[in-house]
Amino acid sequence: MLISEIGENGLIQQINSWLTELDHDSDFSSLPLFVGLGDDAAAWESSSQMTLLTTDTLVEDVHFNFETMNWYSLGWKSLAVNMSDIAAMGGDPQYATVSLALPGDINVEDVHSFYRGAIDLSRKYGGKIVGGDVVKSQLVVITVSMIGITNKQLLLMSSANEGDVICVTGSLGGSAAGLKLLLSETASNDNKELVILHQQPNPRIADAKIIKQNGIKCVTDLSDGLFVDLLRVIQSSGVGAVIYSDSVPVNHLAKKYFPDDAQEMALNGGEDYELLFCGPVDLVNETLKKLSPDSAIIGKIVNGSGVKLVDSFGIPVELLNFGWDHFQ
Amino acid sequence: MLISEIGENGLIQQINSWLTELDHDSDFSSLPLFVGLGDDAAAWESSSQMTLLTTDTLVEDVHFNFETMNWYSLGWKSLAVNMSDIAAMGGDPQYATVSLALPGDINVEDVHSFYRGAIDLSRKYGGKIVGGDVVKSQLVVITVSMIGITNKQLLLMSSANEGDVICVTGSLGGSAAGLKLLLSETASNDNKELVILHQQPNPRIADAKIIKQNGIKCVTDLSDGLFVDLLRVIQSSGVGAVIYSDSVPVNHLAKKYFPDDAQEMALNGGEDYELLFCGPVDLVNETLKKLSPDSAIIGKIVNGSGVKLVDSFGIPVELLNFGWDHFQ
Repeated sequence: MLISEIGENGLIQQINSWLTELDHDSDFSSLPLFVGLGDDAAAWESSSQMTLLTTDTLVEDVHFNFETMNWYSLGWKSLAVNMSDIAAMGGDPQYATVSLALPGDINVEDVHSFYRGAIDLSRKYGGKIVGGDVVKSQLVVITVSMIGITNKQLLLMSSANEGDVICVTGSLGGSAAGLKLLLSETASNDNKELVILHQQPNPRIADAKIIKQNGIKCVTDLSDGLFVDLLRVIQSSGVGAVIYSDSVPVNHLAKKYFPDDAQEMALNGGEDYELLFCGPVDLVNETLKKLSPDSAIIGKIVNGSGVKLVDSFGIPVELLNFGWDHFQ
Repeated sequence: MLISEIGENGLIQQINSWLTELDHDSDFSSLPLFVGLGDDAAAWESSSQMTLLTTDTLVEDVHFNFETMNWYSLGWKSLAVNMSDIAAMGGDPQYATVSLALPGDINVEDVHSFYRGAIDLSRKYGGKIVGGDVVKSQLVVITVSMIGITNKQLLLMSSANEGDVICVTGSLGGSAAGLKLLLSETASNDNKELVILHQQPNPRIADAKIIKQNGIKCVTDLSDGLFVDLLRVIQSSGVGAVIYSDSVPVNHLAKKYFPDDAQEMALNGGEDYELLFCGPVDLVNETLKKLSPDSAIIGKIVNGSGVKLVDSFGIPVELLNFGWDHFQ
């Protein structure tokens, strides 16, 4: 059945019933929900903690297309990228709204798959969809907004200091390699792991907690690419950075399938949703012991501005690309 | 200058500087803001009240086009429709995110106008933009998400009871009449008031407070049209409704310019953003004294289901349209 056959109100009723059915056992939140779906706004009892709010939009043919994404993964990823932002602030995901702009000739069953993906992610990491909007559009545009909570110990981009070391929570380039497999139509069961890294990223909520508990204060998530995201950190902190190209952990399957491109994928591919964090070396060393074996120190914060990439001899390496800017 | 010339990061920096400059004196919130623009998420200190969350999406060529809207009004309206939802729950607008999906060939100055409109609305009614997203898209899609706060006395759609009277806070049809003037290219200084009703609606935050203080519990806002919005109220309350066609207050300028269509515009035009509320007649009469002279009782809640429209003799009137459903 097509959306145009049941209309906006029919689709909203369907979505509300799916969410009620799929979501019935995931009442994880510490903030009691008073009003969920179906009213003018959702309402919950506030706590005396810190509230976080983030939003992210995915546009068809810009951030994804249906050659490389399915509806289930799109639901998963739309929420995951917001959870990754909440994690990068040191918070726990709580409530979310999902706004779907959709052409009328999309199957209602595809929208169902979208919500199944979103709810499966929520079951794994928390968060609950409590509202949204469904509107007609010529192309698919998905905007998720998410509320999180945290104590007052926030993990900020602007907290990098000269002398800090720069780390990542895991290997990079896997998402870009997965996308390349999908685009070249060489995705198979053998390389499914890379495809999943691209389609269904995992927000690093637990890693962020470990980082926070170890006294680190500067964290962001890697969405647009290591260099773009690091640039935001150093610009807001008023410092510069040096990255050791040989220290950046490159996904081993990316290296296997794309030996010539894997390093570039790790540096600029984006969408790995690992965390980037900076802190004093002693705190960082303690932290790394508790994170994935792929986590690593990849550089240091220096006086000045800009990001410099150097090889193992300290010789500057030229960057071919500089992350994602869809407008340019 | 075009967006494609300055890129995503350039535009984000521009937006952040506009918001900082335009917004510097509107620190209205009772929830201290710890992190605003530029980090992974916004962060503020929660209160022990009730938190509200709503979201709305406007799509080019579906909800608006640039023949009938300008960028300033689009900024105003994108936030206003969300404030209207917060008002309809009995809350005060607090923090908002704005996600802009934009083609690269749009002028940066147009985006500036958008934010001027949004901030002018915020100066009038509260609310502050603390985050968002800027993404490339083939057409303009705007999603605003807004946080509000309220005490525990929520104004719900589902609180209508048999015997309640149904009211609106002001005259209807003005927005539809304004749109028709714009579409027929007969908008002028004489009828500018109607155009403004369409382009820059005012959220009824103060009216909602009056309604709440008078003990009324069932409220929604009129966005999709009187009948569509009323249908949501009665379906969630498990009741039916009768509307007296002659009692619905029709905007006097809509009547002047479109004598044949004004009644239909008031019943189904949508986007008036007045409040619809239901309550016992004695509470309602007390409330109406404190609202606009255009506010009125327009019907009653009855046992059963569905909406019936009757004339002054109680004879059923057939509905030609039934509000907006863009998919059908």
